[in-house]
Amino acid sequence: MNPNFDSIGKQFVEQYYLVFDNKDIRGQVAVMYHPTDSLLTFEGQQFQGVEAIAEKMKTIPLDNMFRQITTVDCQPTTDGGVLINVIGQLKNNSENDKPLGFSQTFVLKPANNSFFIFHDIFRLVIHNM
Amino acid sequence: MNPNFDSIGKQFVEQYYLVFDNKDIRGQVAVMYHPTDSLLTFEGQQFQGVEAIAEKMKTIPLDNMFRQITTVDCQPTTDGGVLINVIGQLKNNSENDKPLGFSQTFVLKPANNSFFIFHDIFRLVIHNM
Repeated sequence: MNPNFDSIGKQFVEQYYLVFDNKDIRGQVAVMYHPTDSLLTFEGQQFQGVEAIAEKMKTIPLDNMFRQITTVDCQPTTDGGVLINVIGQLKNNSENDKPLGFSQTFVLKPANNSFFIFHDIFRLVIHNM
Repeated sequence: MNPNFDSIGKQFVEQYYLVFDNKDIRGQVAVMYHPTDSLLTFEGQQFQGVEAIAEKMKTIPLDNMFRQITTVDCQPTTDGGVLINVIGQLKNNSENDKPLGFSQTFVLKPANNSFFIFHDIFRLVIHNM
């Protein structure tokens, strides 16, 4: 297991949203996924491979969204990678909009002295009880 | 990868909370963890191995808590296991209590024709923006 799993996970999360939340460069997150093997489950929809994942990302409307990260929990995986669970909130810039909680789980796998995203599961957390 | 990952994950989640949410038998979830290797991160606190995990679970106060599962997302892992992200809500039986959202991530690993929980990350999702 990688003893630096916690800092690797937290640095990844910071870097990931920095790119993802900037619509001009969002397309660059594609390089963090595996060409054929990476899995994305976005609000229950499943995508495999960087092409399908990048296509989906183009459709996610985050213009004017403000993201706040609440917690980042990391665990080391047996292959030297990192399991990450992020909890945060998304808020539209309009004053009346309620913040939406979200949960995003990543599994990073090591390759070529770096890491790629093998698993990615995103869900909004909406209180409806 | 296990082609039945989705049903394995969903059956596991059902079974897990059935046991966990019944204080008389909650201790039995211990058998689902690995004696020395399993990792639990509970509200940021880290525990390793079934003994430490079981001790922590005894302290989690869920008497009179009602759990509602909102979504269960599963992905197959390369070793034949399953990555699971659960989103749900916990509500105290008292009328005035607001429901608390939670996110729980599990990674199941295959062993002896069954699965054990290798990774477990639990977080309450609280809106505070």
